Amino acid sequence: MTILDGLATSKQIKHEIAFSVTEMVSSGSRPPHLAAVLVGDDGASLTYVTSKVKSCEEVGFRSTLIRRNSTITENELLALIANLNNDAELDGYIIQLPLPSHINEKNVLLAVDPRKDVDGFHPENVGRMVLGLPCYLPATPGGILELLKRYDVQTEGKHCVVIGRSHIVGLPMSILLQRNANPGNCTVTITHSKTKGLEEICRNADIIIAALGRPEFLKAEMVKEGAIVIDVGITRIPDDTKKSGFRLAGDVDFTAVAPKCSFITPVPGGVGPMTIVTLLSNTLQARVLHG
Amino acid sequence: MTILDGLATSKQIKHEIAFSVTEMVSSGSRPPHLAAVLVGDDGASLTYVTSKVKSCEEVGFRSTLIRRNSTITENELLALIANLNNDAELDGYIIQLPLPSHINEKNVLLAVDPRKDVDGFHPENVGRMVLGLPCYLPATPGGILELLKRYDVQTEGKHCVVIGRSHIVGLPMSILLQRNANPGNCTVTITHSKTKGLEEICRNADIIIAALGRPEFLKAEMVKEGAIVIDVGITRIPDDTKKSGFRLAGDVDFTAVAPKCSFITPVPGGVGPMTIVTLLSNTLQARVLHG
Repeated sequence: MTILDGLATSKQIKHEIAFSVTEMVSSGSRPPHLAAVLVGDDGASLTYVTSKVKSCEEVGFRSTLIRRNSTITENELLALIANLNNDAELDGYIIQLPLPSHINEKNVLLAVDPRKDVDGFHPENVGRMVLGLPCYLPATPGGILELLKRYDVQTEGKHCVVIGRSHIVGLPMSILLQRNANPGNCTVTITHSKTKGLEEICRNADIIIAALGRPEFLKAEMVKEGAIVIDVGITRIPDDTKKSGFRLAGDVDFTAVAPKCSFITPVPGGVGPMTIVTLLSNTLQARVLHG
Repeated sequence: MTILDGLATSKQIKHEIAFSVTEMVSSGSRPPHLAAVLVGDDGASLTYVTSKVKSCEEVGFRSTLIRRNSTITENELLALIANLNNDAELDGYIIQLPLPSHINEKNVLLAVDPRKDVDGFHPENVGRMVLGLPCYLPATPGGILELLKRYDVQTEGKHCVVIGRSHIVGLPMSILLQRNANPGNCTVTITHSKTKGLEEICRNADIIIAALGRPEFLKAEMVKEGAIVIDVGITRIPDDTKKSGFRLAGDVDFTAVAPKCSFITPVPGGVGPMTIVTLLSNTLQARVLHG
């Protein structure tokens, strides 16, 4: 059993990105610049955004954290986005979700210039991904592909089961793994809350992508010997023995499942760091293509 | 066993569209206008395009067939597309594929204004489809969904196997049937040339979409009792007993498979007419939204 070490891999990729940035700057060019917009003061969102900003600093990017009160109107937020679209010194930006309920996330998403959409959420990027055209891959699926590639995990002809059909993980993952590419060329089954017989479907899978957001959902009896398991879940579970008051759990019952696997990602230290590093790669790409 | 009669259903939908057009025109508005661009003189392509133009006339649309010699340069074709994009009296248009090999189909596709892309092939429409936003559905998958809907075929919780991963049929079909919608909410498995054990995968399917383009590929022993079978294939097979010199065959061995099915589409008269009618629906939608 091999642990797919997302933390170590992400550090390696950060070194590679930092090297590109150093070359860019020493040739007289400005470094890539990523902005993150955070509305309100949700604790988990703040943690994620702070971690993204910190990663920018590690690789020599410029980064800007833009915080707004949760009382911001949709029009005010759209005006902010228009400014970001027009800022020639800004290569990419993300709008941390969720947004307050009085703001229509769809309108916000559609307002982002696809060339600065380093989260890969805009329909134009999604469509380009489906058609195999150059695009920003959504960060989590992009990070998983990169992890599989770096560990030279063979996927061709394997049966991959994706649990969860979210627009940011499950669905794009199912699309990317069926493509005629490497990683790719899987037979892919996408499953969700309406799926019947999920246990048996999982037991027949060579690769399982668990992305439903239910802690420790995937049990050992749902996994066949030798399977490759990718755990996208990350849920905070109250835990008095921790200083923070919580522990992090994935969607996989790791202790029981890992011994059966050929490859498995841990939580934390698996998909999470790879997600952030994909955001950095996308921003570097934005700088090179449109900067 | 019920035949999903695409020909009869398409006639019904054409009546509905014609009624909308009559209302539009009698209120003083111009009718929808579809153009079709045909490069070269491939026989099958000419047949398809002529059939689309004829369908426009049946429902009261204006239609324009634009033919160009196969020696047209890519730049000349792109200039033609720019004119079509700017034509305020034109609601939608299609570029009949394939194009001559000296023309880059991707460049042509990306030049089409997404608002006039009634084939639903532009990345922006594809991305909108993935995200469940308003869009033009690609014609064949859109036609299949409409056929399932009109026959009130229940799909929720069913396991659907799609054979073929083309950008215009297999892949969008797999995306549309997994959505939280009706028709939809299927567990979907997408299969292709790299898939192993396809026969067994098919035998477990409640719904099979055969879209690989190999005549009579799907045999009775690959289909379980009570399955729903949708045949997207349409291949010309040489046949001296026919006046035309050929017969049309689908991807399904209809005679042997049909008796096992709860629902099945015939070839011809199944998916084909539904594809054309979806193109008409998209053009009507274009007229209403952007005209």
